[in-house]
Amino acid sequence: VPEPVAAQMPSAVAGYDGPLVSLADIRAAAERIRGVALRTPLLPFGDGSFLKPESLQPTGSFKIRGAYNAMAQLPKTELARGVVTHSSGNHAQAIARAARLLGTRAVVVMPENAPRSKVDGVRGDGAEIVFVGPHNSERVERAHQIAERDGLTLIPSADNLRVIAGQGTIGLEIIEQLAELGTAGTPVVLVPVGLGGLAAGIATAIKSLLPEAHVFGVEPELAADTRDSLAAGRPVAWPPERTAATSADGLRAESPAPRPFAHLRRHLDGVLTVSEAQIGRAVGLAARAARLVLEPSGAVALAALVERADELPAGPRVAVLSGGNVDAERYIDLLMTP
Amino acid sequence: VPEPVAAQMPSAVAGYDGPLVSLADIRAAAERIRGVALRTPLLPFGDGSFLKPESLQPTGSFKIRGAYNAMAQLPKTELARGVVTHSSGNHAQAIARAARLLGTRAVVVMPENAPRSKVDGVRGDGAEIVFVGPHNSERVERAHQIAERDGLTLIPSADNLRVIAGQGTIGLEIIEQLAELGTAGTPVVLVPVGLGGLAAGIATAIKSLLPEAHVFGVEPELAADTRDSLAAGRPVAWPPERTAATSADGLRAESPAPRPFAHLRRHLDGVLTVSEAQIGRAVGLAARAARLVLEPSGAVALAALVERADELPAGPRVAVLSGGNVDAERYIDLLMTP
Repeated sequence: VPEPVAAQMPSAVAGYDGPLVSLADIRAAAERIRGVALRTPLLPFGDGSFLKPESLQPTGSFKIRGAYNAMAQLPKTELARGVVTHSSGNHAQAIARAARLLGTRAVVVMPENAPRSKVDGVRGDGAEIVFVGPHNSERVERAHQIAERDGLTLIPSADNLRVIAGQGTIGLEIIEQLAELGTAGTPVVLVPVGLGGLAAGIATAIKSLLPEAHVFGVEPELAADTRDSLAAGRPVAWPPERTAATSADGLRAESPAPRPFAHLRRHLDGVLTVSEAQIGRAVGLAARAARLVLEPSGAVALAALVERADELPAGPRVAVLSGGNVDAERYIDLLMTP
Repeated sequence: VPEPVAAQMPSAVAGYDGPLVSLADIRAAAERIRGVALRTPLLPFGDGSFLKPESLQPTGSFKIRGAYNAMAQLPKTELARGVVTHSSGNHAQAIARAARLLGTRAVVVMPENAPRSKVDGVRGDGAEIVFVGPHNSERVERAHQIAERDGLTLIPSADNLRVIAGQGTIGLEIIEQLAELGTAGTPVVLVPVGLGGLAAGIATAIKSLLPEAHVFGVEPELAADTRDSLAAGRPVAWPPERTAATSADGLRAESPAPRPFAHLRRHLDGVLTVSEAQIGRAVGLAARAARLVLEPSGAVALAALVERADELPAGPRVAVLSGGNVDAERYIDLLMTP
């Protein structure tokens, strides 16, 4: 576990000290995305644990919540010109779908090593794709160039308050659904962390509604940049050559994005890490015991729920399963993980 | 397609001309199973089509609805003695789970060729298993013997009005959920048919609420006994040696059960059949495009939705995905179906 080296690396991004997302922002987002995103069910999973399968969303991940919430608030003329984004895949698909629903143009900058299933999803909704190398910085730079050149609005996958508010609607639903089920005790919610937008939104919603609840981030051991950043008190970067080694392609962030990070410092109780073997086993467990197809990134919270149970506080536990877009060959390999 | 031979076979079961399940029965069942069965989401799937993933239920199939609805109505002393059933697997798991929830004993008679995942599910809930050969008649006979010997109540998987009413709650939810989504047009609902309990309940609910809606059964080509029975106007039997050849182990009925058949004659618009290759492709499609793990029986309605689309009336289409319990090796084979 290589944390000390990473923690000593210089900050890759500037800090953010502007306003944070509020509960009112998240409630407004919930109204805005009604009928576009699904209110995913809370599935009982063993005694006292629950799964929140965002893999069942249109486009196969939670990203439609934030993408649609952000795009639906653009001024009419700005929306009509279109949007551009950079993404490892799931946010790209969500932007493509939101653009189709809102009747506008979308350009997405994706890494050339993105899973075929994610590329196909983007194409299926009619968005234009620009491929670049695997470095996050390349994607960001190219997206900014295209925004400038074509007059498009850039919708980042995480570093945007409206995107964070959209993802936060999952936290609202979890608290409502635990109450509907009559669940007793203080919830413990496990959320995957890449750039941090999902965890930022969910932690904000849950801590605003129920300050005593626990929200933990979950990262692959091979991309534990947010764990290190929280320890250091500032975003620290892991080199993409290292994070590229995790199977969790949606969580290969080099460092948490500034706006999410400001929320995570305020609201997150900690970060758990999971090994590649634990991720692989969780993909298989989800298929057998919950009949859900998960991508590796979508399985990290389940891995932590099952394999790190002893380290968690008491109370009903919820694992957020962020997505299910995985290439068939890769998926079959994962199902065969012993 | 071997229909004429089958249609000429003698009836294997006596007819049923007692009362049918009413909408009030189904509404009462919906109250009874609240908090035990999930209100599964209605997942948009392409333009104007929807999936009802009962694979997400506790124990991985719709069967918990009917099993719990029937057991929860047993008189207290009868419930305390316990229950027995015969099942190819999913009903067995549901009875085992319902018995655990209601704090009583369950014995299930299963075929020795039942999938390992279904056997494990039954064991996991603490039910006793008695294995017999693959013939439905053997299971029925043995279950009756055990009921007699131990004073247990037999809860059939389909030929029981309370079981049918429980499965009918899916039909209530479909109509409610289509309305919540603001869907226009007359629904077309596709439902797998084995012994017929699921289709009987759903067709009764839907036709009672919306007489102009269409409800079609879907059977494997290798077990089209209900298609033949409806054509003949009476239950006709297919030999188990033939139905054993379909991968859809939950639909290897030799003939529709009497009570379900009486409902199907009244309410069903017809039966579509799907080939083994179509079933295999539907399992793969569910994984890729809906991120759902389906067993072959659970995929037949999706196969009909996709491959028989041209034969269906206009209107929003709903495929009921009945279950997701499939052994890992078999599942991987299905995912590799070209």
